[in-house]
Formats: sequence, structure tokens, C-alpha cells
Amino acid sequence: MTVWIHRRPDAEVDAETAAATGALAGSRLAVKDNVDVAGLPTTAACPDFAYTPDQDAPAVAALRAAGAVVVGKTNLDQFATGLVGTRSPYGIVENALRPGYVCGGSSSGSAAAVASGAADIAIGTDTAGSGRVPAALHGLVGIKPTIGVISTEGVVPACRSYDCVTIFAAELNLANRAMGVMAAGAPGRAWPGDVRLAAPPKPVVAVFAALPDLDPLWRTAFERTVASLRDLGATIVEVDSTPFLAAAKLLYDGALVAERYAAVGGFVDAHPESIDPTVGSIIRGARDLPAHRLVTDLAALDRLRATAMASLVGVDVLLTPTVPIHPTIAEVAADPIAVNSRLGTYTNFCNLFDLCAVAVPTNEPHFGVTVLARAFEDAVALDIAARITGTALDLAEPSWPTTVAAAHDLVVFGAHLRGQPLEHQLTDLGARWCGPVETAPHYRLAALDTVPPKPAVTRVPAMESGVAVSGERWLLSPAALGRFLAGLPAPMQLGAVELADGAWHTGFGCTGAAAESAKDISEYGGWRAALAAGAVG
Amino acid sequence: MTVWIHRRPDAEVDAETAAATGALAGSRLAVKDNVDVAGLPTTAACPDFAYTPDQDAPAVAALRAAGAVVVGKTNLDQFATGLVGTRSPYGIVENALRPGYVCGGSSSGSAAAVASGAADIAIGTDTAGSGRVPAALHGLVGIKPTIGVISTEGVVPACRSYDCVTIFAAELNLANRAMGVMAAGAPGRAWPGDVRLAAPPKPVVAVFAALPDLDPLWRTAFERTVASLRDLGATIVEVDSTPFLAAAKLLYDGALVAERYAAVGGFVDAHPESIDPTVGSIIRGARDLPAHRLVTDLAALDRLRATAMASLVGVDVLLTPTVPIHPTIAEVAADPIAVNSRLGTYTNFCNLFDLCAVAVPTNEPHFGVTVLARAFEDAVALDIAARITGTALDLAEPSWPTTVAAAHDLVVFGAHLRGQPLEHQLTDLGARWCGPVETAPHYRLAALDTVPPKPAVTRVPAMESGVAVSGERWLLSPAALGRFLAGLPAPMQLGAVELADGAWHTGFGCTGAAAESAKDISEYGGWRAALAAGAVG
Repeated sequence: MTVWIHRRPDAEVDAETAAATGALAGSRLAVKDNVDVAGLPTTAACPDFAYTPDQDAPAVAALRAAGAVVVGKTNLDQFATGLVGTRSPYGIVENALRPGYVCGGSSSGSAAAVASGAADIAIGTDTAGSGRVPAALHGLVGIKPTIGVISTEGVVPACRSYDCVTIFAAELNLANRAMGVMAAGAPGRAWPGDVRLAAPPKPVVAVFAALPDLDPLWRTAFERTVASLRDLGATIVEVDSTPFLAAAKLLYDGALVAERYAAVGGFVDAHPESIDPTVGSIIRGARDLPAHRLVTDLAALDRLRATAMASLVGVDVLLTPTVPIHPTIAEVAADPIAVNSRLGTYTNFCNLFDLCAVAVPTNEPHFGVTVLARAFEDAVALDIAARITGTALDLAEPSWPTTVAAAHDLVVFGAHLRGQPLEHQLTDLGARWCGPVETAPHYRLAALDTVPPKPAVTRVPAMESGVAVSGERWLLSPAALGRFLAGLPAPMQLGAVELADGAWHTGFGCTGAAAESAKDISEYGGWRAALAAGAVG
Repeated sequence: MTVWIHRRPDAEVDAETAAATGALAGSRLAVKDNVDVAGLPTTAACPDFAYTPDQDAPAVAALRAAGAVVVGKTNLDQFATGLVGTRSPYGIVENALRPGYVCGGSSSGSAAAVASGAADIAIGTDTAGSGRVPAALHGLVGIKPTIGVISTEGVVPACRSYDCVTIFAAELNLANRAMGVMAAGAPGRAWPGDVRLAAPPKPVVAVFAALPDLDPLWRTAFERTVASLRDLGATIVEVDSTPFLAAAKLLYDGALVAERYAAVGGFVDAHPESIDPTVGSIIRGARDLPAHRLVTDLAALDRLRATAMASLVGVDVLLTPTVPIHPTIAEVAADPIAVNSRLGTYTNFCNLFDLCAVAVPTNEPHFGVTVLARAFEDAVALDIAARITGTALDLAEPSWPTTVAAAHDLVVFGAHLRGQPLEHQLTDLGARWCGPVETAPHYRLAALDTVPPKPAVTRVPAMESGVAVSGERWLLSPAALGRFLAGLPAPMQLGAVELADGAWHTGFGCTGAAAESAKDISEYGGWRAALAAGAVG
């Protein structure tokens, strides 16, 4: 019983599963035991710390409301302090796929539960990499969202300023769906009205110029992943890892660890016998750090972040190995602090720099890569992760941020269709393609004499008969839609267009004068058909 | 020589003034002596701390580039630690208008320089109220922008996380112009694409339900100001001051003062004889504060902020007294810490809660009020401050955030004209009215059969003759423009409209079919004229 700290009786789980409805109906959910589930003790892997909450954490409640069924509470590095999965009085969590090797932590049991098939999805938490490291070492997907967009209410804090609730699943579409459910049901930090909703078709992907400490076998695997992205049209640029890795060191070697003392230091001091020796040494070591050193370290962190972010200007995502090495349990026991620290090389900086991340497996067992993006660009990271794993994201549920960030439709008919000459105007604004649509049969399609050629889609007067025109729907943030409109040249106009289902969406039109003098091509029913028939340009 | 720590020779100032060009040509500028001016020593009111920078701070450089002329460097509470203006080895700065009374600080000399007529504008800094308190006590305008939007490079830090560069001037238009010049020339934190650019015509103004410690005479003056806003159409609501005033206490009584130790503590420890006794006791007192207490206080601050901001939902601005009392210099000498603390009652919370503020005078001498708004809503605060002071903001230069935040035009012709039935759709989105415009003479004006009645402004075909149509221009943030478009009902459309000067701006159009069947009213040249003639609806 090292994976689970508390497991619900099968009969209870079965009964709930049978009755479940919703987007996640019947998905078996493992919950890291620093996150509240009503009626089950929350231990944070410290039996004497345990309390039994009356209420689910909002993140848990959201998943349950969508039909997920809690299987149990999972083991972790005590107080979520560690990346190894060995720092728990409930026992070491062994890697579910590779005996003798570490599971990774601190969300060790959650990852092992999914990897072993005992759960479909699992909630983890992530401050320094706890939602990514054990995903990588088990070939799982781990989504670490932008800080704060999922409520951390009902979560035992590790470093309050940087803690995130995360999702593990075997594949990206399920993780994406679960994250969308949590984000909608347990909202935190508000989404800005100016956010990219998709990665561009030809993204700029940064990689570190040097990859210290990376296992040679995994270096080859990383290079294969980079090559596959290049083959898919990505531009690869190298950035200096120095500011990123320097920030990583601040998380444990600097005064930021005072956040851990603030969270549970009083308890640790009062119950020395209840605490894992390594965890205790870290937390007690933070007791006497001076406040002015924390101020100085936070200022240093800001400078490192500024340097790092400056190196990412023009870059869509940063791609890194998730973990550089896979240590054995014996190796960790021999040098628990140093090995743990090495495990966090490529994960520690992420939350400190307010980045979001998606960790995905590669073809090399136990080796994963992480796609990192700026705060609120979770959809961008998810898209690149999907390309790396060859996952087709469901168009009806394209990426979890699109379901929670404000977004507006734009229906296009010609030069802004996918693959047409002005598509880039939309993808440059972070617009997300949502598939084909058709207007109500009340429109006229004509070809304007513009460069590039554009269609004039105009509504016919009430008494006249029109045609249905085929188009495509994009999603844009409010600011992106405003910018697109502000850059739109005459004679094009935007306004409400009636679709086949009778609903009105914002879409392209044009001035009446321009449409009148344009050549009627309504008979083709759409721009692509007219192009194919040679009726345009 | 208590106002000035260093004054430039008149001949230098005169020569520069004669040669000055730009938006601030010849404005005499006083600079607080914790802000770098190339070639003049920066003392922070501590002679032994002094260094002579090679470069102007970016804020200073921006004002000089626009024609402002530095007159000299002004006295301050040492290391900007104080709100009194008495904590300086260069001497106490007496109130320029009320002998025997304090000037207010820490930007004491800057305010006194403007109040005495020795400078037209002055740079201050503000962490706890230093850009507002001395403005109030001298009947000046003090603009404390959103944290970070003006670079603090070249400023001796007080509390790095909360320090702001501010402007003092005798009246709002000059302060506004100077702030715009600084914001454009010394940019910091990026402006979001989703920001209100104006206060609504009928704002909701919050006031504290109780106003502790307020001088009875000033209470009456505050009530008069509130009544005048109500007379101008504002809705006044009361909010609980508890979380605001509790946060104020955290700034000096909690561990946040460790930021001051981090900034200059090493110097203070090494030069005990160089330090003002009160300032020294504050900064040295922060040396041994533990980091975990700072974490705890920051968490407490976050909770207080959440409570405070929740109480301001639906509120446009918060109006407070700037300072509750005007102490004499003798009263401060008798109890320097306690009186200083009382002076910050209504200012300390502002930067901690990431609010912006505009301090303005009232008709009651030495009593000022402050308009506070959310981060990046500086234009909203400025508008309300203009209404309080009866200032007409220049339409060509309407508010400094409009000159630096991204904004798009929208030209309207009918129901969205000022005073017309749908104006509120724009003001609800924070749009800013920018005055009348006229189209190029290539348009047709018709009256649509909609509720409310709307015009169809359509471009006439190239060979036909049209008219110039009068309209009005609004400015909107990108997100507001996107939201407006997304909510626009058929048959209205938005696109590029040619104005009289030949430039194209985003404006209203409509579908050709709707325009065709609409009644031509081009002869009136505009909607207001058509309405006045009874030609519509």
C-alpha cells in the first residue's frame, strides 16, 4: 500500500460509477493526498497532520460533478516537498513500470495510479515539477496550468505563491478534457481578454543551447523530438539556459523555501518525530532565514525572469527534457537532497517564471519532454504537445483554455480560410480554427476585384432567394478580434452572419457598393469550389 | 535651503529653457533627490550615500526630451522613508503655504517647489503615499500611476515591489501631459489590451462608511466633494474601510519593511552616524525579521486585497480623503512614528492593493481628496479627478493612459453618438469620446427601420456622388472593440470608413440589402440634423 494512502471501498466506487453522468462519466480519479476529498482524511503524507475535510476541494468537486469517481487518495513526498516519491512514512512509491527506480514526485502515487491502470485520471500538485516529473518517468501526460487559473482552495500549501493543481492521464485528450472541467468548475485567477488560443501552424520553438546533466540516451531521444517538430514546420532556435537554471537553484537553495516554513513550519517544529528526516531538514532549515534575504532573492528572481523572457521574445514555446536522469531508489537513498535537486533541473524554473507547461512522453521509455509557454498561453503549449505526441485534438473541445477564456467567433469565407493567403492574419493573432460552417440560405457570393482576391458575402433582401455559403469558423480573444477589425481594409466589413442552424455569428461581409460591382459566383456555394472551378481571379 | 538639496545655476537653467522644444518646452522641473539626474549627485537625503550618476533616470530623460528643464534636486524624507518631510539631515521642509506645519513627505521638496512657484512640475516617488500626501497639504495635483508603468530604473528603492514615480503640478492638465510624456518615454509594465479608457458618464463612486481620524473641518469638506460628484450624476456607495486600513498597518508594522532593509540596510548598518534617527530605527528594526513572517504577511495582504476588491465590484473609483490631519512640525517632533503613521491612513493601502490614484485639491485649503482605481484604470481615476476639480481635459490629449495603452478608433453616426440611446454600449466598455468627425464626401446616409432607429452610412459607388456625413470618434481598447463587434446585431457592420482628411478609420456601416431599402436622408448630412428635422423614426 505505497501508492494509496486511502482507498475507497470497491462497492462505493462501483455504485458511483454506475450512476455517473457528464463529460467524465465513470472516469476513475485518484487524488493526491494533499488535496481535500470530503470525508476522507487529508494527510499530506504525515499521519499526525491529518484532518478530515467536510468539503471537496473545488478542483475535486468540479471533476466529480462531471462524472469522475474518486478511487482514493494517493501517496506523495511529505508536504509535497520532493521530486522523488521516496519521502513518505507510508512507504516509497516505486516506479510502476521500472522496478527499483524512483516513481518521481511529489505526486508519486497519483502518477503510479494512472500508469498502473488503477485510475484514468489523477490530480497532482506542482510547485517545482511535481505534476511533470512523475508523468515523465511513467510515460504519462501531465498538464501544469498557468498559476492560479485552477483554485488551490482545499490544497495543503507547499509554496503558496507557486502551487498549482495538475492533471495526469495516459493521453492528451483525456487530460485536456479533465483540465477544462476543473478550470471551469474551480476558477481562480481571471483570464485576460487578450490571450492566444492556438499555436501558429509554423511555430518558433526554443531549446536550450546546452542540456546539462542529460542522460546520453535521452539526449538522442530529445534530439529526435526536436527533429520531428522541425519536420512539422517548426523553426527551432537555441536560447541560453543560464537564467532558467539559476532560478531553479533559488527555489530550494535560496530564501523562497521560507514559504514552506510559513505553510507547515509550526507543525514541523511541534511534531519532530512525525516528519520525514529529509523533509524536516529542508523545512526547519528555512526557519531562521531573514526576510530581507527573501526580498533580495525575489528581486534576483525578477531579474532572471526578465532576462529569460527577453530571450523568448518571438518564441512560441520552450521545449525541454522533463527530467535529465532516472535514478534508482538506492541512488536517492544514498544522497537524497542532491539527486532530488538534479531531478528538478528542467522543471524548477517554470512556476517561478509564471510559465505553464505540458509534459508528454516520447518514444523512449521513461523519457518525457515538456512544452512550456507564457502565462495564459496554455492552449499554445497544448497544441505543440499534441503535435509531438501525434494527438488529434477533438475539434468540438479543442483545448481547455478555449472553454474558459473569453473567446469570440469569426466566420470567414475567402482569403482567411485555412491554407488561403490571409490565414496568417488570424493565426498571428492566436486565432484557433474550429472547422467548416455554412450560412443560412439567404446569401449571395461574389468575387471582389481585390489583391488577393476576396469574396463578397452579402445577405440578399428579404424577398429574394439566396444560397448557403460555406465558410470556416475561427475563435479569437476579444482583443484579437478588435485588432483584426482595426486592421481590416475597405471594402471588407464584419457583422452578424446567420448560419445554417439559425444562430448569428460575427463574420465577414462587405460594403454594398463593392458587392454590387462584383461578379456573382453564388452558384459555387463557396470560395474553395469557385477557386477549384477557376471562377475567381 | 531645505527645499533643494542641489540647485542648478540659473544661467544653465535659462539657457536650456530658451532652447527647449516639445510638449513640455520650458517647464521647470524639480526632481526628488532619490531619482537620478545625470551629473548631479543622488543623495536620497543621506550625504554619505551620495553617488553621481552618468545618466538620467528614464523618467527624467523622457521629461527632458519633451522640453522640461531640470531646476534641481529636492529634499525628501531620507531614503523615502516617511510621510512628514522632517526626516532629513538637509533640514525640515516646512509647508510652503502654512508656516509651522509639515510639508508632507517623503517627496517634500518636490511638492514645496511646485507650491512655491519655483517649479512647474516635479517628480516624486510614492510607496506609501509620498506622491499624494505632500500634494494634498499644498493644494496640488499628484498622479500616482499604476505600479510599474513608469520605469523605476535610476530610482533609489524604498520598497522595490511598491515604488512608483509620480508627478506633482498645480493643475491636472499639466500633470496629465507630463505623466503621458513619462509613460511613453520610460515604459515599464506592459499595458493590457483590455483596459478602460474613460470613466462612465454616471460613475459609481465608493466612499468608506467610516472615516477614522479625519479632522472635523475636513470631514465637512469631504462631504461637500462627495455631494458635488453626486450632483454630477455619480452614484455613491459606502464600503467597509476595514481591509483597506488593515493593509495600511501591514506596510510598516509587518514584515514588508524588510524590503527597506534589503534596499539600504547594509549601508545603514555600516554608517550609523549618517542616518536620520527615526529612519534608522525603522530600517534597522527590519534586519532580523524572519522570512516566513514576510510570507505570512504577504498572504494576509492577499486576503485583505481579495476582500477589499470584492467590495469594489461594480464600483468605478474609490474616493478618500488624502490625509486625515495636518500636523505641525512640533507635533511630528513629539511623536515622529505615530503622527507619520496617521498621515498614511488613507494612502498606505493603495500600492499594496495595486491601485492607481490621483490626488487633487478641494476648496478647503490643505485638504485634498484622492481618486483610486484598479490597476491600469488610470484614465478612469483621472476623469473623476477632472470632474472634482472642474477641469476640462484637452480633447486632443485626453488622458495620459490613452497615449500609451493600445487603443482603436470607432467612428459612429447614429444611436452611438453622445447622448443617443446606445451610447451606453460604448461607455460600458470604457470607450472614450474624442469629439466630432466628418467622412469624406463619398457616402450616403439613410434611416434604417430598426429599434432604436439607426442610420445606414454606406459608401457610394465610385462613379456616383455622395455626401460628407458627420459622426463622432470614440477610442476603445482592442478587447472592448472586439466585444462591441461580437455583440453587434444585423444589419449593422463595422469596417474602414474614409474621413474628410483622407484617412481611414474603423467605423459603422451596414449590409447593402438593409441600406437599399432604407430611406435616404443624405441631404441632412448627419443623424443629429435628421433627428432635429423630424426626418427619422
